[in-house]
Amino acid sequence: MPDKIYFTPGPSQLFHSFQDHFRSAIKENVANISHRSTQFIKIIEETNEAIRELLQIPEGYHLFFLNSANEAWDRIIQNLVIESSHHFVNGAFSRKFYDFAIRHGMRSTRTQPEDGESYDNFNIPEKAELIGLAKNETSVGFTFTEAEIEKIRQEHSDKLIALDIVSASPALPVNFSTIDTAYFSVQKAFGMPAGLGVWIVNERCVEKSLKKAEKTSIGSYRSIPTLKKFGSKAQTPETPGMIYIYVLGKIARDILNYGVKRMQNDIVYKAAIINQTIENHPSLAHFVSSEKHRSLSSIVAKANNPSVFFDAISEKGMILGKGYGVHEGEHIRIANFPAHSRESIEYLCDLIGNLE
Amino acid sequence: MPDKIYFTPGPSQLFHSFQDHFRSAIKENVANISHRSTQFIKIIEETNEAIRELLQIPEGYHLFFLNSANEAWDRIIQNLVIESSHHFVNGAFSRKFYDFAIRHGMRSTRTQPEDGESYDNFNIPEKAELIGLAKNETSVGFTFTEAEIEKIRQEHSDKLIALDIVSASPALPVNFSTIDTAYFSVQKAFGMPAGLGVWIVNERCVEKSLKKAEKTSIGSYRSIPTLKKFGSKAQTPETPGMIYIYVLGKIARDILNYGVKRMQNDIVYKAAIINQTIENHPSLAHFVSSEKHRSLSSIVAKANNPSVFFDAISEKGMILGKGYGVHEGEHIRIANFPAHSRESIEYLCDLIGNLE
Repeated sequence: MPDKIYFTPGPSQLFHSFQDHFRSAIKENVANISHRSTQFIKIIEETNEAIRELLQIPEGYHLFFLNSANEAWDRIIQNLVIESSHHFVNGAFSRKFYDFAIRHGMRSTRTQPEDGESYDNFNIPEKAELIGLAKNETSVGFTFTEAEIEKIRQEHSDKLIALDIVSASPALPVNFSTIDTAYFSVQKAFGMPAGLGVWIVNERCVEKSLKKAEKTSIGSYRSIPTLKKFGSKAQTPETPGMIYIYVLGKIARDILNYGVKRMQNDIVYKAAIINQTIENHPSLAHFVSSEKHRSLSSIVAKANNPSVFFDAISEKGMILGKGYGVHEGEHIRIANFPAHSRESIEYLCDLIGNLE
Repeated sequence: MPDKIYFTPGPSQLFHSFQDHFRSAIKENVANISHRSTQFIKIIEETNEAIRELLQIPEGYHLFFLNSANEAWDRIIQNLVIESSHHFVNGAFSRKFYDFAIRHGMRSTRTQPEDGESYDNFNIPEKAELIGLAKNETSVGFTFTEAEIEKIRQEHSDKLIALDIVSASPALPVNFSTIDTAYFSVQKAFGMPAGLGVWIVNERCVEKSLKKAEKTSIGSYRSIPTLKKFGSKAQTPETPGMIYIYVLGKIARDILNYGVKRMQNDIVYKAAIINQTIENHPSLAHFVSSEKHRSLSSIVAKANNPSVFFDAISEKGMILGKGYGVHEGEHIRIANFPAHSRESIEYLCDLIGNLE
């Protein structure tokens, strides 16, 4: 085992059982068998089932395997947007989704306050076919409330809503009934190495991709109709990252056995400790000013001199997250994922509290 | 360790050092660190260097990380073909590359003899911008000779050549100077679990993608200019499959330490044993009739009753490859990769030789 604890918000700390499951996968020949074999189909079914139960994904939503959240942005634009999407940008990742749309030749638009600031309004151009939201903007710790997502849904029921749940799921509950598609990568709140992404789409997305396919190309092996065709047989179009699909299912099952509510209560408890530590510290302050928009799983604080924190904490074998991109010299970020025990967060916060 | 030996041509047998390298990666925190960190940049550099040396990739070729050969087909069409490509099809995988081009809206063409049969001619329509060849058609064991690839290059120097080296590299030498782009996935001849692909492109490809970008979208995070921009700093646009990139470099280095020539001589030696076994067996025959077009690393035999072989060999803890797709009931396939020891091949061939 590595001797450090990573509080970086992705890649992050590995889930405690990751290595055991990896070893089992090797033992059960998951790296060797055909991805068309009954044995592997059963693995896909089990992972599917565990993820659906863990994230409480309703009937009528399909679950596909990709390789990253970057790929999800790519495939969403390729499959679900014919001319224009609208993006609520609040930090580097939601901005990147908008940039991808532009690079795909879309005439997309965005609403972008200062990083970390709340939105004045949720106006969306009529022409937008899809709305991009990040449940948890990992770069600055801004989160949408469920009420806001619901309001956007109600006022724009003709448009598709794509929700970024990277670093949110499974730490925070997500109401799938208010969105059409969502995606995450496993190196954040699932405590796995990078290289696997999950993309969830409903039937409205399937229909939209078929509609787009009538006019233009929606790609090849990872178009929604192709993913659905193989997915309905618990298969994938290509040879996928079989070991990670296996391990993802096992970790999801471990969390289910521990209790989803219990794990999510832990997240709330740990967030309270982290928040209190930030509030009590003379040289730290919340970056997101509006309390209800502060992420519980990717917590971002302004620091007068971040390196003081990194250095002192690192001496104790723990790694804090640096500020992302332009915020590198101004922020510290603390991931609060299922892989982070209460004890490790308490210890971390004691250390931070004692720093000048 | 799994208790079986997989002679399936991908997913296949894991390279003997895979698990050791995986454990080292975990110990060295490769799953946790930032993909922008100096530590990870060094890993990318090392993997790059080892792959370049192992495959003897000349200067002026860039090496990018993808997730599969399927993705390489996708990205090649997206970046390098504006209207039309031409494909030499000889089995399921080279056919799929052609299909992908069509699905991307290209007016692509193909030359397709019966599976396993040689080509009468290498005529290519004037309009084709790129030629798709498979060095090793894993599905039926058809291979192009270096002389043929050179001839195609000389007669069509204005066109780009894309060479599928899945299941060929590093087992068989490839002359990069006769091609413009090549790609492989690691679950074949590199003896790794699926989930990582490598894409090699030269400067002609970079120029072509820039030319296409002037007219239309070439995608986003995995367009060639973006991959090159990040690649030149030994980085990737997104958080990649970091552990597998690390392990790939280590396995490549292990093969280099063993000796490339020595490993490739082993391949030739083992192929000779397998071929002799097929030729001496009353109910087996080579599927590819032309000797010089028979793959040495993915060997395919017609069998009167394949299940006799699968069952008897499987009882001894060894797994043969089934015929691919339409050939499932007619073929056996035997992978001959660096992960397959001389001893295991000799033992396998003894068993096959003794079967009725």
